[in-house]
Amino acid sequence: MNEEKQLQTYALNEIEYIKVHGRTTGQLSPLTLFWTGSAVELNAKGSELWVEVEAGYDVYEPWIGIVINSAPVSRLMITEGRHWICVFRGMNPDQVKNVRIVKEVQAMSGDQGCFLHIHSVKFDGQFLPIEEKPYKIEFIGDSITSGEGIVGAKGEEDWIPMWFSATGNYTELVANALNAEYRVLSQSGWGVFTSWDNNPHCNMQDDYEKVCGILQGKRNEALGALQENNFASWQPDVIVVNLGTNDASAFDQPQWKDEVTGETHKQRRNEDGSFHEEDIKAFERAIVRFLTKLRKYNKKAQIVWAYGMIGITMMPYIYRAVEAYYRETGDKKVSVYQLPNTTEATMGSRSHPGHLSHLKAATELSEYLQDFLK
Amino acid sequence: MNEEKQLQTYALNEIEYIKVHGRTTGQLSPLTLFWTGSAVELNAKGSELWVEVEAGYDVYEPWIGIVINSAPVSRLMITEGRHWICVFRGMNPDQVKNVRIVKEVQAMSGDQGCFLHIHSVKFDGQFLPIEEKPYKIEFIGDSITSGEGIVGAKGEEDWIPMWFSATGNYTELVANALNAEYRVLSQSGWGVFTSWDNNPHCNMQDDYEKVCGILQGKRNEALGALQENNFASWQPDVIVVNLGTNDASAFDQPQWKDEVTGETHKQRRNEDGSFHEEDIKAFERAIVRFLTKLRKYNKKAQIVWAYGMIGITMMPYIYRAVEAYYRETGDKKVSVYQLPNTTEATMGSRSHPGHLSHLKAATELSEYLQDFLK
Amino acid sequence: MNEEKQLQTYALNEIEYIKVHGRTTGQLSPLTLFWTGSAVELNAKGSELWVEVEAGYDVYEPWIGIVINSAPVSRLMITEGRHWICVFRGMNPDQVKNVRIVKEVQAMSGDQGCFLHIHSVKFDGQFLPIEEKPYKIEFIGDSITSGEGIVGAKGEEDWIPMWFSATGNYTELVANALNAEYRVLSQSGWGVFTSWDNNPHCNMQDDYEKVCGILQGKRNEALGALQENNFASWQPDVIVVNLGTNDASAFDQPQWKDEVTGETHKQRRNEDGSFHEEDIKAFERAIVRFLTKLRKYNKKAQIVWAYGMIGITMMPYIYRAVEAYYRETGDKKVSVYQLPNTTEATMGSRSHPGHLSHLKAATELSEYLQDFLK
Amino acid sequence: MNEEKQLQTYALNEIEYIKVHGRTTGQLSPLTLFWTGSAVELNAKGSELWVEVEAGYDVYEPWIGIVINSAPVSRLMITEGRHWICVFRGMNPDQVKNVRIVKEVQAMSGDQGCFLHIHSVKFDGQFLPIEEKPYKIEFIGDSITSGEGIVGAKGEEDWIPMWFSATGNYTELVANALNAEYRVLSQSGWGVFTSWDNNPHCNMQDDYEKVCGILQGKRNEALGALQENNFASWQPDVIVVNLGTNDASAFDQPQWKDEVTGETHKQRRNEDGSFHEEDIKAFERAIVRFLTKLRKYNKKAQIVWAYGMIGITMMPYIYRAVEAYYRETGDKKVSVYQLPNTTEATMGSRSHPGHLSHLKAATELSEYLQDFLK
Repeated sequence: MNEEKQLQTYALNEIEYIKVHGRTTGQLSPLTLFWTGSAVELNAKGSELWVEVEAGYDVYEPWIGIVINSAPVSRLMITEGRHWICVFRGMNPDQVKNVRIVKEVQAMSGDQGCFLHIHSVKFDGQFLPIEEKPYKIEFIGDSITSGEGIVGAKGEEDWIPMWFSATGNYTELVANALNAEYRVLSQSGWGVFTSWDNNPHCNMQDDYEKVCGILQGKRNEALGALQENNFASWQPDVIVVNLGTNDASAFDQPQWKDEVTGETHKQRRNEDGSFHEEDIKAFERAIVRFLTKLRKYNKKAQIVWAYGMIGITMMPYIYRAVEAYYRETGDKKVSVYQLPNTTEATMGSRSHPGHLSHLKAATELSEYLQDFLK
Repeated sequence: MNEEKQLQTYALNEIEYIKVHGRTTGQLSPLTLFWTGSAVELNAKGSELWVEVEAGYDVYEPWIGIVINSAPVSRLMITEGRHWICVFRGMNPDQVKNVRIVKEVQAMSGDQGCFLHIHSVKFDGQFLPIEEKPYKIEFIGDSITSGEGIVGAKGEEDWIPMWFSATGNYTELVANALNAEYRVLSQSGWGVFTSWDNNPHCNMQDDYEKVCGILQGKRNEALGALQENNFASWQPDVIVVNLGTNDASAFDQPQWKDEVTGETHKQRRNEDGSFHEEDIKAFERAIVRFLTKLRKYNKKAQIVWAYGMIGITMMPYIYRAVEAYYRETGDKKVSVYQLPNTTEATMGSRSHPGHLSHLKAATELSEYLQDFLK
Repeated sequence: MNEEKQLQTYALNEIEYIKVHGRTTGQLSPLTLFWTGSAVELNAKGSELWVEVEAGYDVYEPWIGIVINSAPVSRLMITEGRHWICVFRGMNPDQVKNVRIVKEVQAMSGDQGCFLHIHSVKFDGQFLPIEEKPYKIEFIGDSITSGEGIVGAKGEEDWIPMWFSATGNYTELVANALNAEYRVLSQSGWGVFTSWDNNPHCNMQDDYEKVCGILQGKRNEALGALQENNFASWQPDVIVVNLGTNDASAFDQPQWKDEVTGETHKQRRNEDGSFHEEDIKAFERAIVRFLTKLRKYNKKAQIVWAYGMIGITMMPYIYRAVEAYYRETGDKKVSVYQLPNTTEATMGSRSHPGHLSHLKAATELSEYLQDFLK
Repeated sequence: MNEEKQLQTYALNEIEYIKVHGRTTGQLSPLTLFWTGSAVELNAKGSELWVEVEAGYDVYEPWIGIVINSAPVSRLMITEGRHWICVFRGMNPDQVKNVRIVKEVQAMSGDQGCFLHIHSVKFDGQFLPIEEKPYKIEFIGDSITSGEGIVGAKGEEDWIPMWFSATGNYTELVANALNAEYRVLSQSGWGVFTSWDNNPHCNMQDDYEKVCGILQGKRNEALGALQENNFASWQPDVIVVNLGTNDASAFDQPQWKDEVTGETHKQRRNEDGSFHEEDIKAFERAIVRFLTKLRKYNKKAQIVWAYGMIGITMMPYIYRAVEAYYRETGDKKVSVYQLPNTTEATMGSRSHPGHLSHLKAATELSEYLQDFLK
């Protein structure tokens, strides 16, 4: 291919203008993308662009999406090994293309072997400065926020990366609607206090201060997942917390037991079906703890607990907890918002919200959030 | 990856149950997909499936879409060379997945070097029979039917394969809505009589009887593009012809000149702006000729001339031609249908119909066609 | 009611600023509204307004709609006799309200006793000038254009005025979308050549030059229905003809017989079900005749034959006729447009298009017509 | 009119099968309709039906809507005096029509002279039994629930009955969607604790046990508005309380002062803009009081506090109050639901929710309520 003749290879850290989205270590050689929705952004003035990615995993392979001038154009699985992927070719060399290479799949706490690197690019033109967006939003959530179910037929039941999506996720739609930069921290099955199956270690708050604290294992440690996150470098205007759905299901699941330590945990219901007071209180305290921690690291952000895409069971307790947090701290920049429920018509795969549900949630949440971005 | 241990490789012709969509030579080693929307379909009961594709081109690279259980899950560019692409992995081995590997881009008459082969698959399970759909539809058209503009931002102007799509195209949407198998013959810029720029050789009818007669060059000839198509093997219930848009624009373009032979052609307007009677008659005769040829090869099909997604300039002449055809032949199984126009809100890239326009056209066309499928 | 204290009564011809919509005789004492969608318009600066209407009928009572500042606020049956109807009361006396009293029901050719008069108004304020709209549109049609089926439950089958509507009709929606003044000539069951049941006298063209030529009987004559219409006073920019639906059904109905004269008529099908050539030609000649007459009285108008809300059976013949008209006259300002078909979801009462179907038709027709209003 | 020949007049209490909707005294000669959405329902097998209504008022006239077979067909103002209104005529005498005469406007606490009577009907057929709906829903609210703003242009600002509607109101839409009978208690400007302008007497709970306790004056007393309501006769399955919007605005309004007693009231904000703890507590206590009273009279109902069509300012306190109520009573059949906010696109007249907003709220609320109707 003639075009390739003039292609030059650049390590990411050799590129003058480059924008990395999502929490990372700052390391660029290579760049490791941990969270869903994290991305590399370039303004590329040239005719042909390639990107070199590397993936590894024991179970769950990563996927990427390619977004050009805000339009998704490609979505593909990255199998293990190093691959050169052509982002575009044969385009007008004098036009600038805004390009985002987006991680479509969440960080995988269940697969210590799973990683995605971006090493370098091949390009025949020049990279131009990337405009700063006026706002920053951080989303923290579970499978809903991971976009589980956006892709795939309704009947699908396998738990595999293919059904996840960051583009077409309410997080991306809200960010686009509000012209905001965004980050996502999310993990399927996790809650603010326990996981869907009562594991108290699977909560999104204990390691919030780490770059990607939900990950474990030597490799992830080596990749810097457990480093302290640099909060100073990125302060959100709004933090959206979409947690509670898994905490609710814990009440209906058997107790969790740590086979090693023998430690167990169970969120209980009373005989009449109501939530056991102690356990629901523990859930509420977990929310207060998380809000306190979020505020510690995010001084100016409006914190919005947005909940409801798969029912509103925990809403009263979320309100109660936010109220308690307010009483204890006097912090007024915290609010609660009910997201629209997913219906038969908007359901996706794996009984999770489909794209239409994310679209509806994004439309309403954007309306609500814009008051905090003035 | 452990799963791969049991993966076995099969050449396509070693697979007992396999379905090829779109006009091909019947050759399976390798299978060459020429037209947009052409595909390989499998019912795969197993946990992991790979497909080996090969692409070549001087200018325009092919793209494929991966559809699992009727849901599009991946869309990617195929760069030159042979590649093993993982279709799915880590899935429940006992579940059958319906898989379609679809060519997302039209045959490229402008690039004799362009081809897409499918060589073989790797799989750890068994292939099962594929149900026959009750109906067959053939679509014949131009850039609209090629899905040019479905992908990409509104402002995009480069003429590249990336902006084309077969999935999310009205052809696929209509076929799904009517539970029909379908084939597409389409070429951007071409008409029923001349191309958008007055080239009388760029029409969709002269080589209709060939497998993919719009292609030229030794390689395409070697691949069988110019063989006679086997009509007996696939008789459509409905043929949708969506042509005329480029024939209309020819009246506003300078004359075409064959630099070699010096041959020229020009569809003329009168001074008052109206179409020159001779030239418009030539257009109508071309329609009659094409209808006659379509009927010769498709005895039972209802032929529907569906037109209007980018204006209805030629509609009176299309009706006049269909009427003339009817008078000459008495063939009643031909009708005309006006498709909804594309509006600012439904426009895609390259000033072509976007996905929303294809969705609207598909909804209305399906309503109209179902009367012919009873 | 105190407000009424200062109410003054004005005969319509005593009002300095008043606008009458729809074809009338010009007579204001009283004003007789014949056609559906015809109306009185006022800009009323005051707190309370009443209108005095009078209705008579043997069978079919008239209905009116009240539209304030372009919003429909009331819809009511007018039983026989003279009635004072309160249009608004208790409003801010310093605000100007744009008021339209609209006839909701078509002229009733089947009831010589049916009439609607507007005699006078009572008002406590002043009437202000009414802005001229930049465009004028005339609609000519059948039950579809009469809005039959817009009101009422799907199952309704009685043929009564209650199911008709002028507001919420595509005619009004198109006029509003294009900021045009409009008139409607329409009659359920009538065609351009014959009625749905083969009566050749029930066509919309023979008496087009009369104010409301479809009406008969002494009273209507006395009211001026049969006077020559004053075309000079109102020249449309666009004429939309939505006829053909009843002409089509005539082919499937028994012959019509005039019990008095013994005259009969029948549009025939051939044994193979196709239309009898002579009869279809007669239909086409009727279109040519009508177009010729329309042009005679409307020199500048773009004439658009808009058809398809209940199927497109006659479309080929409409195109053929319009083509023939063009060949004979060279008149280029005539075109054909296919309206979207009514579906199960958009059906109204009496198996006629419902409001949603009118909304869809209006959206698409407005798009098409705006090119003629520049 | 010949039809009238056989018309017979019946006082309401002479009709064997008749259904009255909405809270009334049980008195039928005449029947007084107090609340919006209250109605008379008949299954009328005959060709022509008239109803005799009587209205009186000092300021605000009543309006009625006519609904036939669940389709709204007419909407009209009732001026003072007695009027015979034709509901339908000329219909198939053998068909049964389900007819509802609905009060379109709320009870008017601001006009002691305002009343609407239904005296009798004229009919030429027979009345048949009316099927019982499986569910009963009671709605309690303010201007939103009164449908203020559903009718009229966006700019309208006069506070008049014309802009109100019961049909096209979320209450009716929810009831239809769930196949439920329903009642509405609502008053513009009122709250659960105070009115929008701090009047503590304008709350929807103090006189909840009366038939229409918000009304005052001798005439209303004579009409029975202040009688004890007969709760035994109508026990709802669900009570929807949509209150809080006016309680919120009170915090931004000047103090209310009773000119006679000199009594004053004011909901205060702290200097930092937050709500004064005492006052917000008073609001919450009012909710607890109301819930307690609702439960006293409605033993089996699920009580749903549905709020949010004009913002969610009070939501945290509503949750807090519902929680407090639960702690005090152990009553689990109370929940809170956030309704979708009204946007620019769904706004109606007087800056109130328009029909589209009611439609959206009804769709989501129906989804939520159906779980309580199994």
